[in-house]
Amino acid sequence: MLVRELGEFGLIERLSRRVSASPAAHHRQEPPVRVRVGIGDDAAVWEATGTAEALTTDTIVDGKHFTLATTGWNDLGWKSLATNLSDIAAMGAAPGVAVVTLGLPPDTVVEDVEALYDGLLAAAGEFGASVAGGDVVASPTLFITVALSGTLAGEPMLRSNAATGDLIAVTGALGASAAGLAVLQGAAPAEGADADLLRAAHRRPWPRVAEGMSLAKAGVRSAMDITDGLLDDLGKLCAAAGYSARVEAVCVPVHPAAVAAFPDDAMAMALNGGEDYELLFTAPPRLMASLGGALDCEVQVVGEIISGTPGEVFLVDAKGDAITPPRKGWDHFA
Amino acid sequence: MLVRELGEFGLIERLSRRVSASPAAHHRQEPPVRVRVGIGDDAAVWEATGTAEALTTDTIVDGKHFTLATTGWNDLGWKSLATNLSDIAAMGAAPGVAVVTLGLPPDTVVEDVEALYDGLLAAAGEFGASVAGGDVVASPTLFITVALSGTLAGEPMLRSNAATGDLIAVTGALGASAAGLAVLQGAAPAEGADADLLRAAHRRPWPRVAEGMSLAKAGVRSAMDITDGLLDDLGKLCAAAGYSARVEAVCVPVHPAAVAAFPDDAMAMALNGGEDYELLFTAPPRLMASLGGALDCEVQVVGEIISGTPGEVFLVDAKGDAITPPRKGWDHFA
Repeated sequence: MLVRELGEFGLIERLSRRVSASPAAHHRQEPPVRVRVGIGDDAAVWEATGTAEALTTDTIVDGKHFTLATTGWNDLGWKSLATNLSDIAAMGAAPGVAVVTLGLPPDTVVEDVEALYDGLLAAAGEFGASVAGGDVVASPTLFITVALSGTLAGEPMLRSNAATGDLIAVTGALGASAAGLAVLQGAAPAEGADADLLRAAHRRPWPRVAEGMSLAKAGVRSAMDITDGLLDDLGKLCAAAGYSARVEAVCVPVHPAAVAAFPDDAMAMALNGGEDYELLFTAPPRLMASLGGALDCEVQVVGEIISGTPGEVFLVDAKGDAITPPRKGWDHFA
Repeated sequence: MLVRELGEFGLIERLSRRVSASPAAHHRQEPPVRVRVGIGDDAAVWEATGTAEALTTDTIVDGKHFTLATTGWNDLGWKSLATNLSDIAAMGAAPGVAVVTLGLPPDTVVEDVEALYDGLLAAAGEFGASVAGGDVVASPTLFITVALSGTLAGEPMLRSNAATGDLIAVTGALGASAAGLAVLQGAAPAEGADADLLRAAHRRPWPRVAEGMSLAKAGVRSAMDITDGLLDDLGKLCAAAGYSARVEAVCVPVHPAAVAAFPDDAMAMALNGGEDYELLFTAPPRLMASLGGALDCEVQVVGEIISGTPGEVFLVDAKGDAITPPRKGWDHFA
């Protein structure tokens, strides 16, 4: 059935039922937020329990941020929430309530929209968010906007809190999402465990929600998530803080599967690839050294915050000599 | 200059400066929410002060919910926040933090986007909301999505709280927005005080923010805002509550300027016109009678909640005989 045939209200009702049927048992942990009013009223309502609330929003547009040729509907739903979960994680907040806006061409197939919601609800269940409302609008172009609240127990991690002398670290490994997209586009063999892993990294990114909360709890004061590539995002963090950064290329944790599939391009994918949704954070050396047991994932120090032109990022080799970095991030209007 | 020429990050920076420059003095009252982190990080952060938080989202799409032929850029900005303010008002909450997503065709003129933001900031200042972040994405079609938080001091007003025996009332008068659109489309003379008033009602709707908070404080437990027309929205309220409603046509407060400009159609505009952004609420007769001094605007009782098929709304004449209502609400996919 097409969205046009079912109509706006029929579709909203069908999606609402799907949300209601999504068992709370899917939640790996107790959701941090007690939702009092979900879908079906003018706004979602939840009890305020933390010291502060956070709110973020992210939109993905067909043909600009994704294409259905490389991302299926279920993965699209997962991804649309995951990008927002990653932003909430970068503040050190616990995920709260999500409201979802779907812009749908009238000839969209209803079952595809349901698959999208299933992916979205899977991500919500995995990371403790609650889908509690939203909107469906007719649009010539498919887009998905999610706004997600978060609850902070303590201080938020801010880009502007980075200070000279701070070490810069990243969680996990970089470049897998860009390598996965390249595999999906046919740039490398599509078979094998590495190819599977890379495709999954691109299609179902894993936001560092637990890690962000752990970092904030451990006293880390500055973080952001990596969505446009390490160098580009680090530049934004430095611009917000008013400092420069030096990154040692040899320390950048390039994902081993990306190296295996794209030996020549993996480093560029790790530096500029984007959509890794790892956390980038800074901390004084003593605090950084103490973080060993705080996280369940790898943490790699890649450089340090230095004084200089705000926003400038220097890439250096093992001898400390400057390397010209590969091309910069992405402008969707270009 | 075109958005394509300025680029995504240039535009975001320019809009951020505009938000920062927007003087807090524009706020008619102290904003209820203390924003700790605004634009420029991964999420907005504010201090939790109420008992509960609310979140709503609304999207308007070019060609579906508006056309630039009848709505200018500044009004578009106002309207995109006003629709969300109206939802927050319908819960009885104080407006909080707004995050804004603009979907822009690359050949959009930057000054138009700035005018949109000025309208948005004007509405934020008028009603005490804080614009604290957002996103700009390239899109073949212009759309504006706003997510707005709210803070509740007490219990939220819910559609599902309506009960049999409750009287049904509306704030202000209905039909002015639909009549204004008809004037803009050339269906009536464009000159004169009535035409000005009707156009303004369509272009710069006035959400009942103070009134919503007053109703909740006075003990009203069920409300929603009128966006798709009185009959359609009352049907939704009744469906959520599990009851029917009877509306006395003679009691419906049709806007006098709509009557003057469209004597034959004003009643249909009031019943089905939509976009009035008045509040529809229910309360037991005794509470309803006590509300006289609680609001700064007119309140008109139009009917009552009765038992029956959930969601059914009967329109009756002065003698209590059923009237066939004009055509039902609007499906954007149709």
